Amino acid sequence: MSAMAEAWRARHPGHDVRLAQALGDPAEIDVAVCWFPPPGVLASLPRLRLIQSVGAGIEHLLHDPLLPRHLPAFRIIDPQMAEGMAAYVSWAVISAQRGMSRYTEAQRAGLWATAEVEPPRQHRVGILGLGALGLNCARTLSALGYRVVGWSRSAKPDLPAAVEGFVGAAQLPAFLGRCDSLVCLLPLTAQTHGMLDAALFAQLPVGAHLINVGRGDHLVEADLLAALSSGQLGLATLDTFSVEPLPAGHAFWGHPQVRITPHVATRTPLDVIAAQLLENLQGLSHDTPSARQVNWARGY
Amino acid sequence: MSAMAEAWRARHPGHDVRLAQALGDPAEIDVAVCWFPPPGVLASLPRLRLIQSVGAGIEHLLHDPLLPRHLPAFRIIDPQMAEGMAAYVSWAVISAQRGMSRYTEAQRAGLWATAEVEPPRQHRVGILGLGALGLNCARTLSALGYRVVGWSRSAKPDLPAAVEGFVGAAQLPAFLGRCDSLVCLLPLTAQTHGMLDAALFAQLPVGAHLINVGRGDHLVEADLLAALSSGQLGLATLDTFSVEPLPAGHAFWGHPQVRITPHVATRTPLDVIAAQLLENLQGLSHDTPSARQVNWARGY
Ligand SMILES: NC(=O)c1ccc[n+]([C@@H]2O[C@H](COP(=O)([O-])OP(=O)(O)OC[C@H]3O[C@@H](n4cnc5c(N)ncnc54)[C@H](OP(=O)(O)O)[C@@H]3O)[C@@H](O)[C@H]2O)c1
Ligand SMILES: NC(=O)c1ccc[n+]([C@@H]2O[C@H](COP(=O)([O-])OP(=O)(O)OC[C@H]3O[C@@H](n4cnc5c(N)ncnc54)[C@H](OP(=O)(O)O)[C@@H]3O)[C@@H](O)[C@H]2O)c1
Repeated sequence: MSAMAEAWRARHPGHDVRLAQALGDPAEIDVAVCWFPPPGVLASLPRLRLIQSVGAGIEHLLHDPLLPRHLPAFRIIDPQMAEGMAAYVSWAVISAQRGMSRYTEAQRAGLWATAEVEPPRQHRVGILGLGALGLNCARTLSALGYRVVGWSRSAKPDLPAAVEGFVGAAQLPAFLGRCDSLVCLLPLTAQTHGMLDAALFAQLPVGAHLINVGRGDHLVEADLLAALSSGQLGLATLDTFSVEPLPAGHAFWGHPQVRITPHVATRTPLDVIAAQLLENLQGLSHDTPSARQVNWARGY
Repeated sequence: MSAMAEAWRARHPGHDVRLAQALGDPAEIDVAVCWFPPPGVLASLPRLRLIQSVGAGIEHLLHDPLLPRHLPAFRIIDPQMAEGMAAYVSWAVISAQRGMSRYTEAQRAGLWATAEVEPPRQHRVGILGLGALGLNCARTLSALGYRVVGWSRSAKPDLPAAVEGFVGAAQLPAFLGRCDSLVCLLPLTAQTHGMLDAALFAQLPVGAHLINVGRGDHLVEADLLAALSSGQLGLATLDTFSVEPLPAGHAFWGHPQVRITPHVATRTPLDVIAAQLLENLQGLSHDTPSARQVNWARGY
């Protein structure tokens, strides 16, 4: 976080920004900006009023067993982050569906290797999670011509006309049966931890493409390796991992059916974090409810 | 064309499909389906009523000096072809803008090499040609969050709100100045032949990305190589070439800043060609004007 703190000070000289390792008087801290806060630090701040996550997720806060859950916590919801995610997911879907890596290899070999072109509407993409990020991905992939289905906890009355929504555990099997590509954009909660497992893969069309841009712990890694060997899955594009950086020697690194990116699907510009933090603070004083406030009972 | 003829016969057994090399009685042919018709063949068919191109372009017909230009000719306008093109162009823009090939190389080396993420709205994409294909690309890239400008011969009153249109030679310099990525989706005509040349490249922002999905002859190849060496252009993604297949030993094959795909940006399903041909025939008998009919004076 120290690079972020420096950039923050440079751009917002009015803010008194301190790192967890050098907080000074704990009673002077009223706002905490966090990713993985050192356990216990938040609980040690007597005047803390607000917890701000620097990302869309907040499950990393829960690694602190003393997390002061009575305080309001906020996550980022930002169109630029949503656009970055949709661009990443579109790239992952298109490059696999159109077999773009074949052409890279053919060029390396100096070969003109023309191939069939499958139009987007022959390919079905399913999105697990229709929140700030998933919904925008659904919209974008649908604009590209893909047939899109989405899955969420609660029904979504405002889906784009071409996107079919599925709700809850009861409709999960019907949803999975329609996913030639499956994109995970769920938050990590007790319900979603380890959800991408053998039982789920078995319900996908044979040869499906898994794109995990949620969290590494959504995925049971051994089940993915088995599903790729058996052919039940054809390809996995992974941006997040249970352990990051992905350790040297991990089976994913050299796997011909696994594409790895180093947790770069999207990010929030610093200025957006700073602006949302100020808005959140102001909202608190005026008691304005915010879609960005974390619901601890729900877990996201 | 012989594979296409076979597939056509199999799917439309009512049609009497003959190849140019085995036409039988020329007076029995009333419709010609063509890509590069052998010169003189069309002029030798006394009862020919309609010329149908199998693609969106028609400039290849002009290689026949005896082309019967008094006959109505039709090109393909098809949403599936437009979607396929938008998917290809989106892939080309995203993978370069986000530097996706870095991650492929890092994975090969077993390296977790995280990097900055530039949001789409920081990147400007320009589209030369706002016809059936260009307009849909503009719409899709705009849905992805890119800042899109487009250029056409005539003004487009119905552009999506976020897309800025530029018209004709007078506005070309202003347009080019805003293209971090430039996509060519023009038809090949006397006006557009060789348009992608040193003079045009010099008007782009330094380091721009050229994506040519129009025709190979839009591009002056030597000028591209020079612009890549000088750094005026950063990258070229090329799907079409003056000579196809691209000859062995061509400088593009091993060029680190050139990405080659073998004319696969998009294609029309056979059934769409067959259906449009029948519609075009029917339209002729009812004298219905069609946007698909070629305007020989205009050249497209
Ligand atoms: N790889 C990256 O670079 C990156 C970057 C940012 C975010 N992310 C990940 O993306 C996740 C999603 O972000 P977001 O902003 O879109 O979150 P969000 O707005 O909270 O949306 C979460 C979606 O998941 C659904 N959901 C949650 N639990 C569910 C369950 N048990 N069953 C069915 N659906 C469930 C929610 O349903 P309801 O709509 O019914 O509530 C909602 O549609 C983040 O939590 C983070 O893990 C990754
Ligand atoms: N690589 C591939 O796989 C592939 C596949 C299909 C097609 N293509 C290429 O894509 C081209 C475009 O297809 P389309 O169906 O979109 O064509 P289209 O509907 O005829 O559109 C052509 C566009 O270019 C503009 N234009 C033409 N001449 C111009 C000039 N001199 N100055 C400025 N603008 C000019 C037109 O302007 P107006 O709107 O004002 O007329 C129109 O917007 C085809 O001709 C073909 O070469 C490539």
